[in-house]
Amino acid sequence: MDGPRVTVWNEFRHEKTHAEVTKLYPDGMHQVIAKVLREAGMTVRTATLDEPQHGLTDEVLAQTDVLIWWGHMAHGEVKDEVVDKVYQRVLDGMGLVVLHSAHFSKIFRKLMGTSCDLKWREAAEKERIWVVEPGHPIADGLGEYFEIPHAEMYGERFDIPAPDTLVFVSWFQGGEVFRSGCCYNRGKGKVFYFRPGHETYPIYYQPEVQRVLVNAARWAAAGSGPQVTFGQRPNPLEKIG
Amino acid sequence: MDGPRVTVWNEFRHEKTHAEVTKLYPDGMHQVIAKVLREAGMTVRTATLDEPQHGLTDEVLAQTDVLIWWGHMAHGEVKDEVVDKVYQRVLDGMGLVVLHSAHFSKIFRKLMGTSCDLKWREAAEKERIWVVEPGHPIADGLGEYFEIPHAEMYGERFDIPAPDTLVFVSWFQGGEVFRSGCCYNRGKGKVFYFRPGHETYPIYYQPEVQRVLVNAARWAAAGSGPQVTFGQRPNPLEKIG
Amino acid sequence: MDGPRVTVWNEFRHEKTHAEVTKLYPDGMHQVIAKVLREAGMTVRTATLDEPQHGLTDEVLAQTDVLIWWGHMAHGEVKDEVVDKVYQRVLDGMGLVVLHSAHFSKIFRKLMGTSCDLKWREAAEKERIWVVEPGHPIADGLGEYFEIPHAEMYGERFDIPAPDTLVFVSWFQGGEVFRSGCCYNRGKGKVFYFRPGHETYPIYYQPEVQRVLVNAARWAAAGSGPQVTFGQRPNPLEKIG
Amino acid sequence: MDGPRVTVWNEFRHEKTHAEVTKLYPDGMHQVIAKVLREAGMTVRTATLDEPQHGLTDEVLAQTDVLIWWGHMAHGEVKDEVVDKVYQRVLDGMGLVVLHSAHFSKIFRKLMGTSCDLKWREAAEKERIWVVEPGHPIADGLGEYFEIPHAEMYGERFDIPAPDTLVFVSWFQGGEVFRSGCCYNRGKGKVFYFRPGHETYPIYYQPEVQRVLVNAARWAAAGSGPQVTFGQRPNPLEKIG
Repeated sequence: MDGPRVTVWNEFRHEKTHAEVTKLYPDGMHQVIAKVLREAGMTVRTATLDEPQHGLTDEVLAQTDVLIWWGHMAHGEVKDEVVDKVYQRVLDGMGLVVLHSAHFSKIFRKLMGTSCDLKWREAAEKERIWVVEPGHPIADGLGEYFEIPHAEMYGERFDIPAPDTLVFVSWFQGGEVFRSGCCYNRGKGKVFYFRPGHETYPIYYQPEVQRVLVNAARWAAAGSGPQVTFGQRPNPLEKIG
Repeated sequence: MDGPRVTVWNEFRHEKTHAEVTKLYPDGMHQVIAKVLREAGMTVRTATLDEPQHGLTDEVLAQTDVLIWWGHMAHGEVKDEVVDKVYQRVLDGMGLVVLHSAHFSKIFRKLMGTSCDLKWREAAEKERIWVVEPGHPIADGLGEYFEIPHAEMYGERFDIPAPDTLVFVSWFQGGEVFRSGCCYNRGKGKVFYFRPGHETYPIYYQPEVQRVLVNAARWAAAGSGPQVTFGQRPNPLEKIG
Repeated sequence: MDGPRVTVWNEFRHEKTHAEVTKLYPDGMHQVIAKVLREAGMTVRTATLDEPQHGLTDEVLAQTDVLIWWGHMAHGEVKDEVVDKVYQRVLDGMGLVVLHSAHFSKIFRKLMGTSCDLKWREAAEKERIWVVEPGHPIADGLGEYFEIPHAEMYGERFDIPAPDTLVFVSWFQGGEVFRSGCCYNRGKGKVFYFRPGHETYPIYYQPEVQRVLVNAARWAAAGSGPQVTFGQRPNPLEKIG
Repeated sequence: MDGPRVTVWNEFRHEKTHAEVTKLYPDGMHQVIAKVLREAGMTVRTATLDEPQHGLTDEVLAQTDVLIWWGHMAHGEVKDEVVDKVYQRVLDGMGLVVLHSAHFSKIFRKLMGTSCDLKWREAAEKERIWVVEPGHPIADGLGEYFEIPHAEMYGERFDIPAPDTLVFVSWFQGGEVFRSGCCYNRGKGKVFYFRPGHETYPIYYQPEVQRVLVNAARWAAAGSGPQVTFGQRPNPLEKIG
């Protein structure tokens, strides 16, 4: 089985404007994530906000089995026209992996139907991510939990529809919990939200996080289910009734 | 316990333009539905597309615990501004009961995050609606199934997120099935989609259908759960860590 | 609407054998819980392990809309014959509210189909119970979270089927999380598992916990859904095909 | 990726005692199913009721990633001791695919926690199986529906917990519907119930049914998720609080 074709999309602004982030991710977070997925045998390209059409041309989208999405400070700059194309591709079967602050991206909110709002705090506190569905493929290769030593806190109430499958729940040192790994079906597409990933901590270098990214890309990859049709159907009733 | 305050919203166009529909619902479908809910002890008002702001002013919405929505030929005429207000009210706790062809309404699609498309056929065929979750309050007072003698067919694939609770599944004479009674949580609000209700059949006069409408309005009514807050949280870590 | 008829079942052993528990609950935990529910307008009786048939005769069960269950040190002494009767009543529509250490009761394990095992620790640590589904009736009257100052810890992985609705998630000071409020449909019956309740802490005197017990009893109460039939069906095909 | 190791378990009684069934499945249904899975690259063995320990020794179970189960007339002869071992293996991660009349098998009922009862009729009527979740891997390679020309009818209410994912819904000519493809997580194991398969129709020779069996075995195969631990945890509070 060939690995899925993945496109890693990154807003790629913090890396250019915040020295701290530049140091961590000199080529952008997308390059670090892309490397991980390539090493797992996937065919990976990247795309960023400031490219024409944000790098997501019809051709790129047509050749993408899974799209990974990171955004934060510039959600509003993502063109509705591109969001609509990504949305349609998800309904048609493309997988979507939504990372961290992309909870507030246009595409995630459009697919969820809710505000996707949450509580947050930047205090470099400890996060412990518990696996609550250990049989799910996104938990392959993990222990019962893993920790992120310094994380931005995200806390409930996370205003999302209840996930079709809840894989991870985070504990934060300061007293909050969070549904950190959430699977959804939308149309023929699979969507996975994964919480970790603040731009000022080296989170995408952490092996457990990398393992989740690989698992999630595999899980979300488009399958070969039925071509769905909609609209008017012929009347077979003479034959039946 | 006082009954919930319900607003029955109807597009109210077919009744004015199609003689067949006028005959069935001379005052509009909303009046028939409103009467049923009033007789069940609820406080009911109605609203229609051609009223200013479609009859859904801030004041009306603020006083509505459950909104019932029927639309078909003029979804596109519903103003986005009104849709956004209804949407926010649902996330804040107002119930929403979506009827029949309103599967394609702006508000339902926005809350679902999918196309909400389906198959259909007008052949006056028989529909048999099976209760698959008999302990759910929306099934109170029903038998194991009930029939609609002449129905427009709606068939799968119905492009919705899997319901949080699936209460009804329809069988159609011509060979299709349909998830006909679908419960969702969205924000603090409850949403119920109920399939029956074509404008040219006397469906809202049928006692079983009326029973479902009453049950659904009761189930969807806003509760008194926590006032949810979002955004930045203070740092308690000095005390904890 | 009359309140549901509730039977509060308690193992009632710790209260007789551990001085610390006797002091907290001199008449047994069931009496404290029963009082709370009575004050909320319900008709309440109690039953305990050492009564004949554990106090759960056919007559008592037939007159029970919701059964509340607390057990811990003597799960094995509950007769299978009684468990089977309770089980059948749940499938027939009786609600069941399962408290704390009753995660390991025969009746809960039989209804879940899993081991219902978990992690635990007695360190009198702080528990913070977050509401993750604020629109659910079991969250009525609560804030965004409430705290139990000294709790026994229960931690994930909690070996249960994913709840039909997850209402609460607990945070524990020592680093664990737990799905603390879990709703299930089983047959026509509703089941709610609620985590708090260790026998050596005054947890059932806490107003938020009492509010949850009242809400849960109301939510779980048997409805009037269809009388379900099983088995062979007549052949209507001459008429249809 | 090597295919999973599958054990096909068959009661294997009808084939020996009913001439009609012998003719269809001279070597037993299990051999037909085993052949299909082998051709899809899986390592397959078979086991039957009348072998010692029903062919399910500790060694066989330990080497099984997915167990497929067909039973009907002799559910009661399956030893509880073997059922308990299979049950524990599922909780530990082994997949289980439950076919047709095995809805009433001890192992399925134990894992579901409900009666698993249903309506049925033998009238050789037409069944049309609709895909309601086209993005699910068990629907790979299928059309929007497929038909079984002559099927035993199974009808709702099917007394199961709501599936974690509902993949198929059946339409029957005589007026019933049925949740025909149901996915569950139980412990670390995945369970799939698939309705088709009456012993007197050549159903397991049908390509669409074979495709579902292959898909289901792949989906249900044990992953490499965390080794779950239960029981008492050490107290870290000195460090934390």
